[in-house]
Amino acid sequence: MNPPRVPAGEPDAHLQEQTVRREKLLEGRFLKVVRDTVRLPDGGESYREFILHPGAVAIVPLLDDGQVVLERQYRHPVGRVMVEFPAGKLTPGEDPLLCAQRELLEETGYTAREWAHAGTMHPCIGYADESIGIWFARGLTLGERKLDEAEFLDVITATPAQLLDWCRQGQVTDGKTLSCALWLQNVLSGEWVLDWGAQSGS
Amino acid sequence: MNPPRVPAGEPDAHLQEQTVRREKLLEGRFLKVVRDTVRLPDGGESYREFILHPGAVAIVPLLDDGQVVLERQYRHPVGRVMVEFPAGKLTPGEDPLLCAQRELLEETGYTAREWAHAGTMHPCIGYADESIGIWFARGLTLGERKLDEAEFLDVITATPAQLLDWCRQGQVTDGKTLSCALWLQNVLSGEWVLDWGAQSGS
Repeated sequence: MNPPRVPAGEPDAHLQEQTVRREKLLEGRFLKVVRDTVRLPDGGESYREFILHPGAVAIVPLLDDGQVVLERQYRHPVGRVMVEFPAGKLTPGEDPLLCAQRELLEETGYTAREWAHAGTMHPCIGYADESIGIWFARGLTLGERKLDEAEFLDVITATPAQLLDWCRQGQVTDGKTLSCALWLQNVLSGEWVLDWGAQSGS
Repeated sequence: MNPPRVPAGEPDAHLQEQTVRREKLLEGRFLKVVRDTVRLPDGGESYREFILHPGAVAIVPLLDDGQVVLERQYRHPVGRVMVEFPAGKLTPGEDPLLCAQRELLEETGYTAREWAHAGTMHPCIGYADESIGIWFARGLTLGERKLDEAEFLDVITATPAQLLDWCRQGQVTDGKTLSCALWLQNVLSGEWVLDWGAQSGS
């Protein structure tokens, strides 16, 4: 195996692609797809087709009794009911924490006293620019949820041990929820420390 | 919050959607997008647009010295070099284990003596039907890699502790790699047990 060529001062020049031009391929009711022509590291050209997405948030809501709040929702593309952490798309320009607070309330009815930003995940780096901010919420109070029209989902609770068992047994397969479970496991063990001082706009 | 309505014998009828019809929206060079009209649980209609994908595999390759094999690859949709576990798309009809063996060899040059199927993840349940089978490989031998044309990537190794640190610090944000990291952490701790007797075709 040849060692990768690493030009001085540009450590990733042997990997990077440059956009030559962009075509709009699809403007659907929900999905936007573009095709970029790219200049490859060796000077050749290729095509990258992907979805333009405004970004999203996922929330790990921690109840005072140690359980987490999850949803069961039918996901048509995979044809089954999935167990997921609450999540939702950013309205363009929306503050991510305000989006997380809005989605948690709308979908589950919970409001939280404290919030922490954990990390970011990219669900589909092959064909979408989407990034999902992972948030933790605690000090939860239950009110009335306000589902969007055409939104149907159950709210359930589980202990972290149950959730991890579901991940192991294949009952939880949603990528963002598995990524959140990695955060949850390490936060609860004390390995990964959150900053609970999240303020919207920050 | 009202308890969900659960009809006897059909526990998820209050969540499920039925496909009324399908339109092809895009047949790109790489991406296929459809729009399904669906019947909602309340009898209304809505639309679901999503990518049809043949499925994929991701591989957690364990070196005899305790390190794992990773890749650094520029991902145009997110505009950056990502640290990822090796992965690749199934050729339609391809045996997933043979696909995992082929992708590991092509991308990294490694062959493995033993394989275990860990689990499944769905990276993008909102807009793709893709499922990714997660495989572990051990007993690795390094040979010559055979990258596809227009494929550029570096092969690196890291200890599991380094990888988990990168997840925590935001240097690893790829959803399939975070999901694999959850598996890796629990397999190494002994919490989750793998069956190392995977045979292709099984």
